[in-house]
Amino acid sequence: MQYHDNPRFPRGFRCASRNVGLKPSAKDLALFVSEVDAAAAAVFTRNHFPGAPIILGRQTMEGGRLRAIVANSKCSNVATGAQGVDNARRMAEAAAAEVGTTADRVLVSSTGVIGVPLPIDIIERGIRGMSADLQHDPLVGAEGIMTTDTFPKAFSASVGESTITWVAKGSGMIEPNMATMLAYIFTDAKIDSDTLDRILQRAVDVSFNMLSVDSDTSTSDTCAILANGLAGVVDEDVFGETLTTGCIRMAETLARDGEGAEHLIRAIVRGAASAGDARMVAKSLVNSPLVKTMVHGADPNVGRLLMAVGKCFDCLIRPGSTDAWINGHPVVQDGQRLEFDDAVVRETLTADVVELEVSLGVGTAKATAFGCDLTKGYIDENAAYYSS
Amino acid sequence: MQYHDNPRFPRGFRCASRNVGLKPSAKDLALFVSEVDAAAAAVFTRNHFPGAPIILGRQTMEGGRLRAIVANSKCSNVATGAQGVDNARRMAEAAAAEVGTTADRVLVSSTGVIGVPLPIDIIERGIRGMSADLQHDPLVGAEGIMTTDTFPKAFSASVGESTITWVAKGSGMIEPNMATMLAYIFTDAKIDSDTLDRILQRAVDVSFNMLSVDSDTSTSDTCAILANGLAGVVDEDVFGETLTTGCIRMAETLARDGEGAEHLIRAIVRGAASAGDARMVAKSLVNSPLVKTMVHGADPNVGRLLMAVGKCFDCLIRPGSTDAWINGHPVVQDGQRLEFDDAVVRETLTADVVELEVSLGVGTAKATAFGCDLTKGYIDENAAYYSS
Repeated sequence: MQYHDNPRFPRGFRCASRNVGLKPSAKDLALFVSEVDAAAAAVFTRNHFPGAPIILGRQTMEGGRLRAIVANSKCSNVATGAQGVDNARRMAEAAAAEVGTTADRVLVSSTGVIGVPLPIDIIERGIRGMSADLQHDPLVGAEGIMTTDTFPKAFSASVGESTITWVAKGSGMIEPNMATMLAYIFTDAKIDSDTLDRILQRAVDVSFNMLSVDSDTSTSDTCAILANGLAGVVDEDVFGETLTTGCIRMAETLARDGEGAEHLIRAIVRGAASAGDARMVAKSLVNSPLVKTMVHGADPNVGRLLMAVGKCFDCLIRPGSTDAWINGHPVVQDGQRLEFDDAVVRETLTADVVELEVSLGVGTAKATAFGCDLTKGYIDENAAYYSS
Repeated sequence: MQYHDNPRFPRGFRCASRNVGLKPSAKDLALFVSEVDAAAAAVFTRNHFPGAPIILGRQTMEGGRLRAIVANSKCSNVATGAQGVDNARRMAEAAAAEVGTTADRVLVSSTGVIGVPLPIDIIERGIRGMSADLQHDPLVGAEGIMTTDTFPKAFSASVGESTITWVAKGSGMIEPNMATMLAYIFTDAKIDSDTLDRILQRAVDVSFNMLSVDSDTSTSDTCAILANGLAGVVDEDVFGETLTTGCIRMAETLARDGEGAEHLIRAIVRGAASAGDARMVAKSLVNSPLVKTMVHGADPNVGRLLMAVGKCFDCLIRPGSTDAWINGHPVVQDGQRLEFDDAVVRETLTADVVELEVSLGVGTAKATAFGCDLTKGYIDENAAYYSS
């Protein structure tokens, strides 16, 4: 699959972003618009404390159609009660008025501090006139939703006559240097919302749901797809496949730019008794602080891999049938550490991408998880004062 | 309960420790001995890759009697196959010969690098003559099992005519700066091994099993209790209660001295639908990197508490009935952030012990978990080269 890192939007999509005064000077409001109603689907955080935009968004998505997405940073509108949902609705109404649609066709995202009322007056004022700024460059929108990301994230790919464009922001979890995951996907392919629901869920299962920067789950995570149909019908299988590989690519991009991260860790687990086991072991590898610091230190410490596999208490694991590789080099066979050239493996661990592979040897299920190393940069970003 | 931090052993117990050449100069071998056979019970790691001493130890404990414990550091004898178990057995035999008992009365512990053969010849030579060094000070043994601990950990308490003495080492998880948890408990109370099994399990459930430094689970964790009966029968309830509170005290001691830790975090969860839910939420709080860095930064970031509660997907959590406190100050009521004096709460977060309390408001179950903050010291200890 060919991805374009100078991304373009599919037909009929544009975006704008600006500073409206929530942050001192950085962009804090973004608007994505389709010129016609788009079939739409979304998945939201499973956190028991979803933000007001998530509570509203679940209602909005029942309609299965969207014209626009509006997103602010700095205030997440979480733990703000009934007033919070009212404010999220006012934000949708303001965007709807600006775009020329109704509030039930607008998805709202908010990221930032939890438990603080949304400064809705500032946002309402800020939205006014944004439709005059709408541009064809997805990076404008990607920049508008950034928080602790070190670069704006957007790319596109073609499926037949249609285009798919991914726009996303930072991975990690929460305020103050929050990094709720927002991923918006735009396409001009013609696909109904039920189909979108299904293929989005399938793509998210193997991409964003296998991504972890720090094991913490934001109260605001959102992934939405809009299909406005302007390019007509496409091959559903090819579209679904492209959607999935693109979501994996974006998950890896987010992991690599996790807070403080210096490496992408890709954990591949094969030979598991079930898909659930494979996913759990792969997640255990990318979430283990000792595996993460091992990668950070470029240290081929095989014991930590076995530890992270072995602590999946409820998975079927037989030490005697477990093999492991670090960047393709065999390091464990039948549960025992192999002799290997320490210097060679150590050298491969300095690469940007570190691949840890485990074969459990008890079945045929497999899974891949995406993570990053744990560095002092993470501590710096997250031990800073709330008020700073 | 009165604890003695200048601990003494119960009647009939002594210990010795020395450097036998596994480490350059620090002590690397410890021996604990009862002058008569003691009823004994133990709990071991649930990791699927248990070390050879754990495999052997499970057999040994079937006998329910111990005369001695021998522990080395620097090499954990994990992922070493059948040869590893043979080496663990040779270590038990060497200690048995030195003490004048049989190998089936000796519990072995090894901590250190995984996947490296145990230097059994060095250990066998090193054990010889240790019985001449046996001393009455438990700190001598505590010092002998230290790895990344910053101080030796031992204390004692009285139950009627009997004494209980706890000796333990560092918490965290694994090599190179490994911090497998070893906890040995000695008493001269007369208690049979079935009773010991039961009361030890109950004590461990609310203490060491609720302790987490980094969410990683060592392949060598061991907690054993020896009761040599020299002080006669004691009140079982009082003994069990003292055992439990002492284990909690030791769990807190280990958490506070977790790798890089600057604070003990005590997470108290009440009002849960089940004990399992209460334990899961309490563990989620002490394991969340964002909660841990929040404590490190002395930042009363209430959103992170709600996030860590809310990410327990499978627990019964109702945002509208959730309350939370930081060091006794109410910060969340009915799922919404309260107004509170930020400076006052921030100031309390600089204390050595930080108490996070959550009431879920859906039941009556409760649990307490013990953890520590996440600091650059943890990164320093764990991103260091294997060979250093």
